[in-house]
Amino acid sequence: MAASAEGVEFVRTGYGKNLVKVLYIKREGTFHYITELNANVELTLMTKKDYLAGDNADIIPTDTIKNTVHALAKLKGVKTIEEFALDICEHFLTAFKHVSNAAVYIQQAPWKRLEKNGLEHAHAFIFSPDAWHFCDVTQALNGNPVIHAGIKDMKVLKTTQSGFEGFLKDRFTTLPEVKDRCFCTSVYSRWRYNTSNAPFADAWNIVRDTIIEKFAGPYDRGVYSPSVQKTLYESQVMVLDRVPEIEEIEIVMPNQHYFTIDMTKMGLSNKDEVLLPLDSPSGNITGTVKRSRAKL
Amino acid sequence: MAASAEGVEFVRTGYGKNLVKVLYIKREGTFHYITELNANVELTLMTKKDYLAGDNADIIPTDTIKNTVHALAKLKGVKTIEEFALDICEHFLTAFKHVSNAAVYIQQAPWKRLEKNGLEHAHAFIFSPDAWHFCDVTQALNGNPVIHAGIKDMKVLKTTQSGFEGFLKDRFTTLPEVKDRCFCTSVYSRWRYNTSNAPFADAWNIVRDTIIEKFAGPYDRGVYSPSVQKTLYESQVMVLDRVPEIEEIEIVMPNQHYFTIDMTKMGLSNKDEVLLPLDSPSGNITGTVKRSRAKL
Amino acid sequence: MAASAEGVEFVRTGYGKNLVKVLYIKREGTFHYITELNANVELTLMTKKDYLAGDNADIIPTDTIKNTVHALAKLKGVKTIEEFALDICEHFLTAFKHVSNAAVYIQQAPWKRLEKNGLEHAHAFIFSPDAWHFCDVTQALNGNPVIHAGIKDMKVLKTTQSGFEGFLKDRFTTLPEVKDRCFCTSVYSRWRYNTSNAPFADAWNIVRDTIIEKFAGPYDRGVYSPSVQKTLYESQVMVLDRVPEIEEIEIVMPNQHYFTIDMTKMGLSNKDEVLLPLDSPSGNITGTVKRSRAKL
Amino acid sequence: MAASAEGVEFVRTGYGKNLVKVLYIKREGTFHYITELNANVELTLMTKKDYLAGDNADIIPTDTIKNTVHALAKLKGVKTIEEFALDICEHFLTAFKHVSNAAVYIQQAPWKRLEKNGLEHAHAFIFSPDAWHFCDVTQALNGNPVIHAGIKDMKVLKTTQSGFEGFLKDRFTTLPEVKDRCFCTSVYSRWRYNTSNAPFADAWNIVRDTIIEKFAGPYDRGVYSPSVQKTLYESQVMVLDRVPEIEEIEIVMPNQHYFTIDMTKMGLSNKDEVLLPLDSPSGNITGTVKRSRAKL
Repeated sequence: MAASAEGVEFVRTGYGKNLVKVLYIKREGTFHYITELNANVELTLMTKKDYLAGDNADIIPTDTIKNTVHALAKLKGVKTIEEFALDICEHFLTAFKHVSNAAVYIQQAPWKRLEKNGLEHAHAFIFSPDAWHFCDVTQALNGNPVIHAGIKDMKVLKTTQSGFEGFLKDRFTTLPEVKDRCFCTSVYSRWRYNTSNAPFADAWNIVRDTIIEKFAGPYDRGVYSPSVQKTLYESQVMVLDRVPEIEEIEIVMPNQHYFTIDMTKMGLSNKDEVLLPLDSPSGNITGTVKRSRAKL
Repeated sequence: MAASAEGVEFVRTGYGKNLVKVLYIKREGTFHYITELNANVELTLMTKKDYLAGDNADIIPTDTIKNTVHALAKLKGVKTIEEFALDICEHFLTAFKHVSNAAVYIQQAPWKRLEKNGLEHAHAFIFSPDAWHFCDVTQALNGNPVIHAGIKDMKVLKTTQSGFEGFLKDRFTTLPEVKDRCFCTSVYSRWRYNTSNAPFADAWNIVRDTIIEKFAGPYDRGVYSPSVQKTLYESQVMVLDRVPEIEEIEIVMPNQHYFTIDMTKMGLSNKDEVLLPLDSPSGNITGTVKRSRAKL
Repeated sequence: MAASAEGVEFVRTGYGKNLVKVLYIKREGTFHYITELNANVELTLMTKKDYLAGDNADIIPTDTIKNTVHALAKLKGVKTIEEFALDICEHFLTAFKHVSNAAVYIQQAPWKRLEKNGLEHAHAFIFSPDAWHFCDVTQALNGNPVIHAGIKDMKVLKTTQSGFEGFLKDRFTTLPEVKDRCFCTSVYSRWRYNTSNAPFADAWNIVRDTIIEKFAGPYDRGVYSPSVQKTLYESQVMVLDRVPEIEEIEIVMPNQHYFTIDMTKMGLSNKDEVLLPLDSPSGNITGTVKRSRAKL
Repeated sequence: MAASAEGVEFVRTGYGKNLVKVLYIKREGTFHYITELNANVELTLMTKKDYLAGDNADIIPTDTIKNTVHALAKLKGVKTIEEFALDICEHFLTAFKHVSNAAVYIQQAPWKRLEKNGLEHAHAFIFSPDAWHFCDVTQALNGNPVIHAGIKDMKVLKTTQSGFEGFLKDRFTTLPEVKDRCFCTSVYSRWRYNTSNAPFADAWNIVRDTIIEKFAGPYDRGVYSPSVQKTLYESQVMVLDRVPEIEEIEIVMPNQHYFTIDMTKMGLSNKDEVLLPLDSPSGNITGTVKRSRAKL
């Protein structure tokens, strides 16, 4: 970017509107579908005269950006948040010639249709935040969109089939080895698609189900996890195996600790019946893997 | 209470421990049940010498209160949070002679056992905060416990079958009448039991289901709500009808507004397809009803 | 209240608007004063036909309530949040004949004028949430307003001059006695005025300063606190002594624990240098005192 | 990194402990200094056998990482959070041979010593979150540390001397031009030092003061801002001018909107006296600049 008069140069610029909210309703007769979302939209302009000189001539106001999101929901509809993010990027890169980059982050509200005995309600929903769905799309002028989707705040717990042994010890180590512990984590995952035509809704469900499957194991007996690292990695391998449109996947699995309360001073023997959930600190394990092109 | 030397008198005193956390695990072979909760415990002592003179001789330390909650979980188990709160009150009122009142508030973490095609997982759970379950029990020395339970943060939305017409207008009224609107609320309800032997778990489920039923109506066509007040009141009447152990019930139904976005300035006609969720302000409707003894 | 047809009777009803936001600017030439607030307004109507029959004829819409708060800010100004709450109550009780009760809660945003070397900025402010100011006013038709004000989220810490000894021990007690500890609390206080003409702004400052003074003691050496109870009570006595318009005052002082970390297993001797702040649980000490009329 | 057997390869791995809390007290006689912080520590190991095979032999447990942070606070003290983060990185890179990267994020709690009339309290503090101080340091084995520091949640507001005119209009633009508006922002800034020996505490204060100075202008009359972009950029240029140890600086200035409430339908004329604070959406303006090496 152009250097300014003051001996400084731009590394990055951007502006836009955060938390643009939308409830989109599709009505098929008396049967209604909803998508509630909030979007952050950021544009980068070719010129910097707004920063350098306070000249606003190139600025598409953030209020207009908000209006545009609303208008596009009306004009294009919202099939999935990924497709809507793609529509928003495309609009700003084609309707103007001086937008060099568009980035859109969307988070979807976890509404679930009311159901009873397999019967679906025509128009009533309950907020069910078991897991949140988000996506982000960035696209440069004349470039292909880079599409990520993700899951966050999916909290799961198992009371057994987890351990942590054989680790390194130094003079600051006080942790005992443990063969059987309670394990709780709040899963975050974000993955990149290798196509704009991925089955976004289905893929998100497969990732969610796969992570739960690897965490929980068979329903009658579970599966032993020797470390968070291994469980995390196995989920990733299985996701890449099941969803060919996913090229790369990051998972973060904090270890939200539950400690067995020592009651010996109170004259009681507590055999993993009463545990203390810890607010902080938490372990934090992360890994990102991608398809190995060398392997092809 | 005793007046102090300074021309002031006590209106109320109390102390205890807030946010005492517990994960209670019951293991039936390889099949595990969990209850995670946090408890606030408040005791009132007969003497005030701690306030007046800094004399701590009567104080059961808040650290001991925490230990006691943990120990009682081990000794008594946690069948329901209501029964556990009753156990805690009873302990402090019987183990000591100088505790004049005990009050316990408990909130339960909304863990749900993993399920797939009707199959339940032996030991894995997912955090599903569709609705939170809490209770509070207060008991005075030589008195009966007063038991409340409640639901909070149960958010529901319907896209039609709600209206608001025929209201009073004054010079500050700008709201148009509306026959058909989107209605969203985050339900709070708290009720009082008339017995210590109520079926606490079942009753909570019935209240939740009844509120949803009155909100949503028949699954194929819904039910028209002419005002939040009426829907709220009808839920209460039906709860009292269905659960004889409930004596009184409060419901709060905020009206979390969604407004149809006016797109006429943008040359678009938006027919209730794209709505704006408002963060604030929200309407707030509340009512408390009880069984009418005069009627008996 | 009237019993309904269903064998139930009303205990309480109310409705209104929550989180009505206002920034009020007073301009004296180029010197500007601001008050930012959010208000919850709740009205109780004489009739219940909205609950019973869905008849909205008596309902002043919550949207009108919001508009009225805005209009009153324009018409009356906002001198203090207490006076503004009084204005709102008075409006609804006098403009209508069927409002039996009005209740207004207001919370003020802690904006502080920018200052440098004693110089005040004409129109720029910084958000300084050292302590929050709130009030609530309730007034029944033909009754006097009941006015409370309060402080919340004022967090203070001292590294010494606090102890806790001589307390009761039972079989669940594991806490050691301590002569010198770190003490941290997040003060909540709420008091009732005995007049509508109290010096609301000054009184709030005096309460805040008095609580800090009793907590901290002389600046060179502090003051020893043998228990939270005593410190809390002494603050109350001094507030009642200093502010004759305050009739009753509640203070809540959670004990937000900091524990000295035991490093003996790591071969280190930690003499109160490195402490662990605990998220939970926290002690919670409360007391309410009022002027003793018996003493007069 | 090594490709795994499954046709996938690692992009990034890391693990550690989040929210490790510390209160560090330095006692000079009866005069005490405090630093409260929480740290996130992430290590990357050379091997991946924990992910691939569940072999934990190389893992320094996250519990040990927590202990190490506590021990280092005792052994090294905490002068500034930047220096403490450097100490933590150095420890893990030198005490072990198989740690390839260490990353530490620290956030400091905004405690302020009590002061009255210029007199400082010996050991009592008040929590004053006008602005938060954080830092992050990352260091690779045999590499130099990369040191960032930052400010967050510093919210400022001015009632005049801000406008937005001359912007681009399209069919979705409905925003009117405005010469005089209220402007509020919650400043985030993060900068990179070009040396490990920067005066970290002073530099942070200078950045904070410079941003406030450029926002507010002269105290008697302010300074006109034609756009957030220009104000943001001018702050950056002045920071780089004032602090030679800062090499690059990012600032994010959301535009937290306050709209003048239109009261014409209520028959009132509101001349910028009563404004509505908006929760969402907010504008969001960002820019990163660095020293221009081309200029040297």
